[in-house]
Amino acid sequence: MENHIDIYMDNSATTRPYDEVCDTVLDTMKNFYANPSSLHNLGKYAEDKVSEARRFIAKMINASEDEIYFTSGGTESDNIAILGYCRKNKRRGNKIITTLVEHPAVLECYKKLEEEGFEVFYAPVFENGVVDTDAILKEVDENTILVSVMHVNNETGAIMPIGEISKSVKTKNPNCAFFTDAVQSFGKLEIDVETQNIDMLSSSAHKIGGPNGVGYIYIMKKIRIETPVFGGGQEKTIRSGTHNVAGIMGFLKACEIKKNSMDPDREKIKEIKKYIENTVKEIPHTKINSTDEGLEYILNVSFEGLKSEVILHVLESNGIYVSSGSACSSKKVHTSHVLDAMGLKKKEAEGAIRFSFSAFNTIDEAKYVASVLKREIPILQKTVNLR
Amino acid sequence: MENHIDIYMDNSATTRPYDEVCDTVLDTMKNFYANPSSLHNLGKYAEDKVSEARRFIAKMINASEDEIYFTSGGTESDNIAILGYCRKNKRRGNKIITTLVEHPAVLECYKKLEEEGFEVFYAPVFENGVVDTDAILKEVDENTILVSVMHVNNETGAIMPIGEISKSVKTKNPNCAFFTDAVQSFGKLEIDVETQNIDMLSSSAHKIGGPNGVGYIYIMKKIRIETPVFGGGQEKTIRSGTHNVAGIMGFLKACEIKKNSMDPDREKIKEIKKYIENTVKEIPHTKINSTDEGLEYILNVSFEGLKSEVILHVLESNGIYVSSGSACSSKKVHTSHVLDAMGLKKKEAEGAIRFSFSAFNTIDEAKYVASVLKREIPILQKTVNLR
Repeated sequence: MENHIDIYMDNSATTRPYDEVCDTVLDTMKNFYANPSSLHNLGKYAEDKVSEARRFIAKMINASEDEIYFTSGGTESDNIAILGYCRKNKRRGNKIITTLVEHPAVLECYKKLEEEGFEVFYAPVFENGVVDTDAILKEVDENTILVSVMHVNNETGAIMPIGEISKSVKTKNPNCAFFTDAVQSFGKLEIDVETQNIDMLSSSAHKIGGPNGVGYIYIMKKIRIETPVFGGGQEKTIRSGTHNVAGIMGFLKACEIKKNSMDPDREKIKEIKKYIENTVKEIPHTKINSTDEGLEYILNVSFEGLKSEVILHVLESNGIYVSSGSACSSKKVHTSHVLDAMGLKKKEAEGAIRFSFSAFNTIDEAKYVASVLKREIPILQKTVNLR
Repeated sequence: MENHIDIYMDNSATTRPYDEVCDTVLDTMKNFYANPSSLHNLGKYAEDKVSEARRFIAKMINASEDEIYFTSGGTESDNIAILGYCRKNKRRGNKIITTLVEHPAVLECYKKLEEEGFEVFYAPVFENGVVDTDAILKEVDENTILVSVMHVNNETGAIMPIGEISKSVKTKNPNCAFFTDAVQSFGKLEIDVETQNIDMLSSSAHKIGGPNGVGYIYIMKKIRIETPVFGGGQEKTIRSGTHNVAGIMGFLKACEIKKNSMDPDREKIKEIKKYIENTVKEIPHTKINSTDEGLEYILNVSFEGLKSEVILHVLESNGIYVSSGSACSSKKVHTSHVLDAMGLKKKEAEGAIRFSFSAFNTIDEAKYVASVLKREIPILQKTVNLR
């Protein structure tokens, strides 16, 4: 029986879309299939739909609607914001500051920019996974054009003090822009681009119960970028390509749901996280890699001396689906750059498991997961040499 | 009553998705939502789905499955293939040959490459919209790394002799690669990358009844590219970003349908096109801009002396939705670069209308459209000074 229980706790990789989102995607595909770039009314109806989504999302982060650009997802959003901004502004300076624990969609852009002659400083994080703000501020100089700090880390849930960092950065260098990869926070945590001094922000629909293949970038009005995408000039030339209207409407539906359920969802998920966390703490040779101050959607734990693939397999055979490190690294096998940056020992990093939750998860599921951990982990631990 | 008739003949902008496609998207969203990059079985099931689509599409164009890379659509496909190939191979030569009538998603990439130091030759087309092969061949030299010719023009339906061009190009310079933007032909016209000597090809789902936001690039095994997209390394690092599994499966469904209906669809649409075309020919001061040898999915006609926006409006008030020039140019108002290249006079280009068909269109619709044209165009013509 247990083999048939499906408990999906890999929501930071991708969420199960809401039924309402699926219905909206279907309805839009069937009834608003025209190209928003077409001049006729069917095109205009489709364009109106896109505008409706743009307005709602802008409001959610306290931006204005002409600052929202739809993309194909988080990776494209990160690429356009980072490459687009830095290449456009390279004459103003060639220094960029980011963190060691960004998502590959961000880190790989900076690697590329290093090849192009930019100097990139990767700020360290503390043991709890939160970035060292002082290390960032120390590096900000006249030559620094961009500071880029993710809002919530995708492996640990650590919340970065982006508002505080951005404010301090701009005090030191008012011309320095601030970008945040908000893929793991948008729709889960309040964001206010004005009070948090955010100039650019990236987001993705499928992390909050929306469809895959849609995201957006917020780019503050005064920011100039040189987009790396070329074509028909959609999205004010920032992101060419026919609009994915159905995807955008599905994204809107997910936003509407999350906006209304943000706080109760957090309350519920906090309980789920705590339950599993407390169980893990009772098991010897474990380590909690997520802080209490982190976003409750993610619980990262280490089972010292065990291999995460083995744990993954045992959980899966009990119908529990979780992740080892970040799924977005496309099956490359190596210890997590995030856990490495947090100073975990090899034997801790190798046995790391990420539980990531959604509002579909229940406390009963947490209890079941806890019971499986309590039963299976000690058996696995007997097969290895633990001290 | 007539105002309520909806006849959608703007299918080259985007098609109405098949009901089976909508159902597949919905089913995949609900049942295969996991991230194919996740290591657990739910991830593997999603990955298997993507592989299934990859195999089918590869077979459709006689490629192998490891030569197909999924993207977010035609524009991204064009960008990755063109920018990726030219930047990677710039040490081998800096000359590129393309045509004057490519889609903006292609042309804008070459404009960018010109800024980066490449020399781009834009081959002219004949009056019928077909590219001048000799003009291309004359330009091919040792320094030429890429020849890029679209398969079917999106405004006129002109079919370019890509197999013949590629063969001649490679006879002159075996190291020169051949790329074709097949966004308007894939699924409508047979493609065989082997016999047609195609090294790279781009395609999009929403032009053949698939969902928006999905496409693919075919890149022949021996071709090396430097992708302009950075991130988690999906699609063998060519296109990072979480897979849009639902979109990919919708694309597969559209491919399955089109593969089986390619010939009967063409027969049916040929009849529809001919009916409208013959009607237009009966109206004085008109010009047919699509050749008989072109793809029947597109009929481009000029109503000399009239403004296309005005015709568009009149047709729309009769429930008929068509396009003036290319919708992908995102509402910029100017005469079409394609019709200009074909040598149309200003008064011909300004009154150009594109009817573009799908298998959803019927001969009864064609008859209705013909009756509206016969009634309305002479009325419009009376308002202007025609000689």
